[in-house]
Amino acid sequence: MALPLDIPANKSKIAHPPHPYYPLEVEITGYLANEWSVPALLGAFSTGCAVIFGMTYIIIRRVQPRMPVHEVLTVMWFVLSGSIHLFFEGYYALNQARMGELQTLFGQLWKEYALSDSRYLTQNAFVLCMESMTAICWGPLSFVVASMIAIQHPLRHPLQAMVSLGQIYGDVLYYATSLFDHYYLGITYSRPEAYYFWGYYFLMNFFWIVIPGILLYNSVSATGEAFKQVQKLGLSKKTT
Amino acid sequence: MALPLDIPANKSKIAHPPHPYYPLEVEITGYLANEWSVPALLGAFSTGCAVIFGMTYIIIRRVQPRMPVHEVLTVMWFVLSGSIHLFFEGYYALNQARMGELQTLFGQLWKEYALSDSRYLTQNAFVLCMESMTAICWGPLSFVVASMIAIQHPLRHPLQAMVSLGQIYGDVLYYATSLFDHYYLGITYSRPEAYYFWGYYFLMNFFWIVIPGILLYNSVSATGEAFKQVQKLGLSKKTT
Repeated sequence: MALPLDIPANKSKIAHPPHPYYPLEVEITGYLANEWSVPALLGAFSTGCAVIFGMTYIIIRRVQPRMPVHEVLTVMWFVLSGSIHLFFEGYYALNQARMGELQTLFGQLWKEYALSDSRYLTQNAFVLCMESMTAICWGPLSFVVASMIAIQHPLRHPLQAMVSLGQIYGDVLYYATSLFDHYYLGITYSRPEAYYFWGYYFLMNFFWIVIPGILLYNSVSATGEAFKQVQKLGLSKKTT
Repeated sequence: MALPLDIPANKSKIAHPPHPYYPLEVEITGYLANEWSVPALLGAFSTGCAVIFGMTYIIIRRVQPRMPVHEVLTVMWFVLSGSIHLFFEGYYALNQARMGELQTLFGQLWKEYALSDSRYLTQNAFVLCMESMTAICWGPLSFVVASMIAIQHPLRHPLQAMVSLGQIYGDVLYYATSLFDHYYLGITYSRPEAYYFWGYYFLMNFFWIVIPGILLYNSVSATGEAFKQVQKLGLSKKTT
């Protein structure tokens, strides 16, 4: 995929664009350049994730000291996912109309990320609706799933499958819509530097394809196994 | 919701628009007016649905004569849904670049439906990607679920939940994106006559919120019940 490299010639001729986002001619209301440096922003984000991971690990080890490692990792994933969905993506959903001017930590982080996808600064209907659904549904439900794993709740697998499928579907549509606009309509939302496209747009979102893919597969398998056992023993007609 | 009624004044002044779709100034490549009458088109679509329903009913009653009525209805729903996803929505996904000019039955049906949502004729990235996912994933999987119900397969409920959630999510995004464009950006895709908005856009899609909602709830409940029984009897550590 050579997405960020083939910039239409006419776009590269625009002198002094009012912002660094692509397409260069797109209007970004009230744009203000970030005040923090990129290392400071990425450092703050990474530190936040590390703190969430660490605290979740400590709590789960105290509450359930004998939980297997893969289950501990799954709880940590859902707590981190839920935090990002609810707070970071929720922040964008609430402030979508004035993202270009925000100088808060989350505002600046979104402006940095938007170098790989300017739709976050231009009131794109799909990105806003998908992110709102993610913040409202998959955010809180991620915390519910994390708690259900800790207490071995019987609804853990159906809810884990729902959240994971929701994350995958939103992400596939996220990739697909911008690739369609690029390849069919010639509209590119990422800056041409490869690290924005591959590091931010591709990699940051790819986690939410691979990990939910594994978790969805595990939940579907475990559920099939549960129904097989119930059917074998003829335990209940309700469940068939 | 007064969506189709508050048309911006400047749009109503456009004389002799080249097509009947909203916004009136939107470009629809190679547009040709439908050759069939509206009753003929709607009659053909209804007949097609009735034939699929009837044939499914006859087959399922022969294969599984003692299947409870609600399960027969669920099989009929998934066969009809699968047919619409795979053939009707798949037809749009394959022909999206030239929808305005098609005079086939499906082409004319889409042009009639597009009076309530012109995005189907304008290469809208979200509508295309959502419909492609629906045709590729939920279409074939709907037939798989229908077969699984017939043979009481242990994977029936996890797959029924997946297809139903996929349908709901796509549909919610479908509603949300056009309502956002209408209310925030002032772009309206439906003609102003209320029956297009309420009859086509709202009602035709609302079926895919309500019925999958019930089926998703049933599958999640049945799965929770199965895990509860497996846990009670300590049948397997795999499933917890």
